[in-house]
Amino acid sequence: MQRSIATVSLSGTLPEKLDAIAAAGFDGVEIFENDLLYYDGSPREIRQMCADLGIAITLFQPFRDFEGCRRDRLPRNLERAERKFDLMQELGTDLVLVCSNASADSVGDEQILIDDLRLLAERAGARGLRIGYEALAWGRHVNTYQQVWNIVRQADHPNLGVLLDSFHTLSLKGDPSAIAQIPGDKIFFVQMADAPILAMDVLEWSRHFRCFPGQGEFDLPGFLAPIIKSGYTGPLSLEIFNDGFRAAPPRANAADGLRSLLYLEEKTRQRLAEEASAAGNADILFATPPASEYDGIEFLEFAVDDNLGAKLSHWLERLGFVKAGQHRSKNVSLLRQGDINLILNSEPYSFAHSFFEAHGPSLCATAVRVKNSASALERAVAYKGQPYRGLVGPNELELAAVRAPDGSLIYLVDQQADVYGTDFNLQPGAVIGAGLKRIDHMAMALPADSLDSWVLFYKSLLDFEADDEVVLPDPYGLVKSRALRSRCSSIRLPLNISENRNTAISHALSSYRGSGVHHIAFDCDDIFAQVSRAKEAGVPLLDIPLNYYDDLAARFDFDDEFLSELAYFNVLYDRDAQGGELFHVYTEPFEGRFFFEIIQRKNGYAGYGAANVAVRLAAMAKSRSGGLRHAKL
Amino acid sequence: MQRSIATVSLSGTLPEKLDAIAAAGFDGVEIFENDLLYYDGSPREIRQMCADLGIAITLFQPFRDFEGCRRDRLPRNLERAERKFDLMQELGTDLVLVCSNASADSVGDEQILIDDLRLLAERAGARGLRIGYEALAWGRHVNTYQQVWNIVRQADHPNLGVLLDSFHTLSLKGDPSAIAQIPGDKIFFVQMADAPILAMDVLEWSRHFRCFPGQGEFDLPGFLAPIIKSGYTGPLSLEIFNDGFRAAPPRANAADGLRSLLYLEEKTRQRLAEEASAAGNADILFATPPASEYDGIEFLEFAVDDNLGAKLSHWLERLGFVKAGQHRSKNVSLLRQGDINLILNSEPYSFAHSFFEAHGPSLCATAVRVKNSASALERAVAYKGQPYRGLVGPNELELAAVRAPDGSLIYLVDQQADVYGTDFNLQPGAVIGAGLKRIDHMAMALPADSLDSWVLFYKSLLDFEADDEVVLPDPYGLVKSRALRSRCSSIRLPLNISENRNTAISHALSSYRGSGVHHIAFDCDDIFAQVSRAKEAGVPLLDIPLNYYDDLAARFDFDDEFLSELAYFNVLYDRDAQGGELFHVYTEPFEGRFFFEIIQRKNGYAGYGAANVAVRLAAMAKSRSGGLRHAKL
Repeated sequence: MQRSIATVSLSGTLPEKLDAIAAAGFDGVEIFENDLLYYDGSPREIRQMCADLGIAITLFQPFRDFEGCRRDRLPRNLERAERKFDLMQELGTDLVLVCSNASADSVGDEQILIDDLRLLAERAGARGLRIGYEALAWGRHVNTYQQVWNIVRQADHPNLGVLLDSFHTLSLKGDPSAIAQIPGDKIFFVQMADAPILAMDVLEWSRHFRCFPGQGEFDLPGFLAPIIKSGYTGPLSLEIFNDGFRAAPPRANAADGLRSLLYLEEKTRQRLAEEASAAGNADILFATPPASEYDGIEFLEFAVDDNLGAKLSHWLERLGFVKAGQHRSKNVSLLRQGDINLILNSEPYSFAHSFFEAHGPSLCATAVRVKNSASALERAVAYKGQPYRGLVGPNELELAAVRAPDGSLIYLVDQQADVYGTDFNLQPGAVIGAGLKRIDHMAMALPADSLDSWVLFYKSLLDFEADDEVVLPDPYGLVKSRALRSRCSSIRLPLNISENRNTAISHALSSYRGSGVHHIAFDCDDIFAQVSRAKEAGVPLLDIPLNYYDDLAARFDFDDEFLSELAYFNVLYDRDAQGGELFHVYTEPFEGRFFFEIIQRKNGYAGYGAANVAVRLAAMAKSRSGGLRHAKL
Repeated sequence: MQRSIATVSLSGTLPEKLDAIAAAGFDGVEIFENDLLYYDGSPREIRQMCADLGIAITLFQPFRDFEGCRRDRLPRNLERAERKFDLMQELGTDLVLVCSNASADSVGDEQILIDDLRLLAERAGARGLRIGYEALAWGRHVNTYQQVWNIVRQADHPNLGVLLDSFHTLSLKGDPSAIAQIPGDKIFFVQMADAPILAMDVLEWSRHFRCFPGQGEFDLPGFLAPIIKSGYTGPLSLEIFNDGFRAAPPRANAADGLRSLLYLEEKTRQRLAEEASAAGNADILFATPPASEYDGIEFLEFAVDDNLGAKLSHWLERLGFVKAGQHRSKNVSLLRQGDINLILNSEPYSFAHSFFEAHGPSLCATAVRVKNSASALERAVAYKGQPYRGLVGPNELELAAVRAPDGSLIYLVDQQADVYGTDFNLQPGAVIGAGLKRIDHMAMALPADSLDSWVLFYKSLLDFEADDEVVLPDPYGLVKSRALRSRCSSIRLPLNISENRNTAISHALSSYRGSGVHHIAFDCDDIFAQVSRAKEAGVPLLDIPLNYYDDLAARFDFDDEFLSELAYFNVLYDRDAQGGELFHVYTEPFEGRFFFEIIQRKNGYAGYGAANVAVRLAAMAKSRSGGLRHAKL
């Protein structure tokens, strides 16, 4: 499949955009007219630049408000078209996007539209050029692909074809299935854009909130599948108007764009296979090994130095972890409890050490258990993931790994692998079955503009799913959170961002000098037993205001004794509509960096206690500012 | 009038909010429940804190989903209310906001709603408390104040009254005039919020985009006027849900809030006077001298040092300015052309010098010509403007001045004042009637989160008007622009912001270390004559790509010779729907800081060439990056 992207999707000057597009591996580019107007070089120079970079100019766009224009303006509009045809010939592209007329004084008479477009196609054809006619969602008279195809069919000119854009159909809740009935060679071009579902004016939504496939909420495989069924084999192009993209570094953003197309192709291929459609040319779509099944987190690795390693080890022991092993040759130790394995790495000249140098004490690697690590790695690499091979000493197990967007590692570990026996001298008598059972989730703090990139990374390389975004108040701004999960939810990863400077998320980011895990939640069966033990062992727990418990009393039918117990242990409570219950408690942060959460889920509670995030963030703000505690009970 | 604000309108912890509210001069505060829940102190402590600060707790809010709830839940809901009544008594406030039920399973039967609210009022009354019933715009069955009044009237309980919120009425395009018919003592509370007009889901709009009165597009005097007519004399309170406010410094933001209420009161007083309404208690509204009539800009003063002063003087002379005077005792010179006076100040130990130290070469003062400077200053101070008195030497004219939000000065100069004769040795023979006639506008670069604050400053202190916001693309992000104008438009001030780091606006901000004027436009009668002279004099003009002129050729009926002339002189062109025409040309920036624009308006063109901003910003980005110029003509 020829993969293309419109220049308007990226930030920068035209040469910066073209460079990024070529570097990402696109085959072609749509030249958005304004990018050309603002560039201080001739169309011929742009043509040469693209040729040098090995990318085709797939489309010139847009040409607006032509068909059905006020009759006295038609000659002037044809003159305008001829000027743009000149430009296209200099650029060396044969296809122009004509979008449906949006002006208030345009006429809707179908025969006029047909005649105007046939006339334009005739003019274009005389110069070997072609017209792709597109329905804008806010077109004055034409705003569906069905109308476009009806007009194109009747105009019946070889140089006039249909141009499809997913946004314009899906934003109006259009049904794309009838696209399959359009002859594939009468579809001249396909533009793909995703978007979050927003209840707002469609023009504003389109101009500011589009995103790459897989980052939004549209069913794009459901849009591409009938296109493939039609027999279309032309370019698949991204046209993304997005305020954030206009400022994002163009190279990284273009790389995300290509990854999003591959992801869309894979999902479309699956959709076609499920439908058992006889779409022979589904083979033009990207194929890669399916994602592995996941079986939770094998281990987490922390980058520390000797001093902080000892401190962290002491913290974890107070939480019930046991020193279970020491690396045979490296300054690396293993702590265990239940199904949880935590590795503390202070080995010099290691990956962990470089990570520590860059980010301070932090989570530098996450090992996920997979059914087949080889195919998991193959998939990650096919999605342009960066595989990692570190120094491996004698008697060390080699683990497949890929870099996460923040530079930390994601190890892909086979379920049956003996991860620790090879590398570690294990403590034979260590009791590891204490009260914390498994890692429930790890929450990450990300720079505000990188959330979509992370979501795409996990969706494509690891085939994770993403929950809906929630917005939560911190005392100093808003925090947005979107949780990623492996299918079956054995791995959960809420991603948090904030656009404001003084929120907990922004503090985490600045302390890390980059993204990072800011808390890790451990699951248990009896929260009060666990918290009681932690409290006795001296684990500093985040203090929750009594007013919170007064409100619980107003909202739920708890007896006073139970409420007192919740308050005494600083346990937060939530209940979902189905009667699922969550109990959870937070520690103070370790060295001002990351903190831990002890969590108990009852009756299938699936969330993360969003109702309690605001009180937690307020308590953290107070704790940061070192305020005196309110005496309790 | 008792002026109040809801804690949710500000960022920070509860004590930080209360402190800011008291410091701004509010009389009261609405306690938003979540702020209390998240605070680690008892309701009694909060009550004491407010008493110590001298602010009343005017309202506790909100109490949700009560009236018309599922019948089996009513006892539990009453229990919940009693818990909150306990809390109110500890807080020492007697009024609670009950907002109309928004839950899907609530019932709409009017008699049930009446009975439920009467029951609640009875319970409240038994404890000396009162219920203010408010219609949410998204209430399930009740969403207008007319419904609310109808229910309150029939419930007929002394402890139940109407609570009004401008947003909930105006967002649904409701007509507030019937409020005048509600007995004033049955209106228990009034909340005021403005908002930009957005075509989006009303709940999202309300939760994220409200703003202070005067910052949005609602007709708030039209909402307050009938309230005053009703005889209402209770608090006027701000309840602003705004993502930016959640992160803004609370003290500065609270000060804006109070200013916005004063502004609203002044405008409402004017509205009532225009209507010649017999609203006796209009006198409770804030009064201040009306704004002066403006007659353009008297002078601009630049902060420089000797070296940069000489350089800037040379630049200006090449633009046709003439050295017209030297200050009698200070290192200050005057350049003139037409009606334009520019002062270059490099005097040590002066205000300009401090400004130079802080911001580099920059505009440090703007003198506006007014009819009566004394009343203009009185008005500015009534609106909490900070008056300025600098060092005044012998033989120096004393000018009234107020500080702009960026710390620069706004001088208020009487029309008939002899501004220069007293202070300057004027050059008797200087010819000052060259081609540039007057200052058309000055464009400012502001930090993204301060635009609303500036708009309010100019609207209230100076009674300027604000045009609609426009959004414009820079190659590295979006730029938003909102123009302020004096009535009659003799002074124009487009304000520009950008949320992205690498745009021209952000570059201007970082070079200034703060807000600042980034360009000044001079008006003329013959743009080609002026530009030709400037070009010959060696003024560096911003190079505009030829592709821009090819597009002009496609869009307009220009002959080739005229187009060549536009392109040769780098003149940009725009035409509005009424046939007004704009010709304008930009210089390169002076010392990378600010630049100049030469402008010619024809046939009443009133804008600023928004259609050309993108090409200008792209040319500036190229110029910044030092790219080689494309050889032209």
